[in-house]
Amino acid sequence: MVSPFQFADFRVGQTFRSGAHTVTAEEIKAFAQAFDPQPFHLDEADGARSLFGGLAASGWHTAGIVMRLNVAGGLPVAGGIIANAIDELRWPHPLRPGDTLTAESEVLEVIPSASRPGTGRVRVACRAVNQHGAEVMRYVATLVVRG
Amino acid sequence: MVSPFQFADFRVGQTFRSGAHTVTAEEIKAFAQAFDPQPFHLDEADGARSLFGGLAASGWHTAGIVMRLNVAGGLPVAGGIIANAIDELRWPHPLRPGDTLTAESEVLEVIPSASRPGTGRVRVACRAVNQHGAEVMRYVATLVVRG
Repeated sequence: MVSPFQFADFRVGQTFRSGAHTVTAEEIKAFAQAFDPQPFHLDEADGARSLFGGLAASGWHTAGIVMRLNVAGGLPVAGGIIANAIDELRWPHPLRPGDTLTAESEVLEVIPSASRPGTGRVRVACRAVNQHGAEVMRYVATLVVRG
Repeated sequence: MVSPFQFADFRVGQTFRSGAHTVTAEEIKAFAQAFDPQPFHLDEADGARSLFGGLAASGWHTAGIVMRLNVAGGLPVAGGIIANAIDELRWPHPLRPGDTLTAESEVLEVIPSASRPGTGRVRVACRAVNQHGAEVMRYVATLVVRG
């Protein structure tokens, strides 16, 4: 695990990679039951009949898994990962039972605060891929980073 | 509860409003434990010392609650709510224990499919507010809507 980056440590082009998580059908259904109770996230047969072509995780579940991977060291920000904006959030491929997810973040921009020296915002592009390298989720996050 | 809208029923400017959900400290901590285990989402004292100024829900938790409110009738889409894109996701105010969340969606654009008549995409601006009317989350979703 990389030691946490202060604002001054960030440079455009740096990349960070998370650990991995393999998702189960039970996790997919439990999240869906709690937050996105639609048939294609709850039942294999309903998933197969949907445009997902099989049981698929809620996109918000995928976002939660990626957040946990990033908090667990995938994106080592001193003071924590606090995004005040997420842009261009996409789910190009479904996340299915048995899929193993990893996330990679690349620094796009480092924006010093005008009022608080040594702090600022860091824009990162985050991509999550499955075990076949297919992109399951991507977004651009604007992180608020303290010194 | 409004009966579900087919693609042909959507018009620019239509608005939909969800029911309400009051979030507890226990829910905030349980979600954080599972998906966003950072101190300011897990502990009142750590939250108070953070830039949130108190225990605050993970932004992904807020997104999950709003999804559930929309699935429960807040956004009545025939065939289900399937977004292939979320843009401009923001969390202007923290979601705190005891806050009551409601969501409102406004149709921004209706884009017929060139290849599948009667289906298409519908862009909606979704805003979630607390009991004081403060905006806790907003985003623009592009929904894939069948006939």
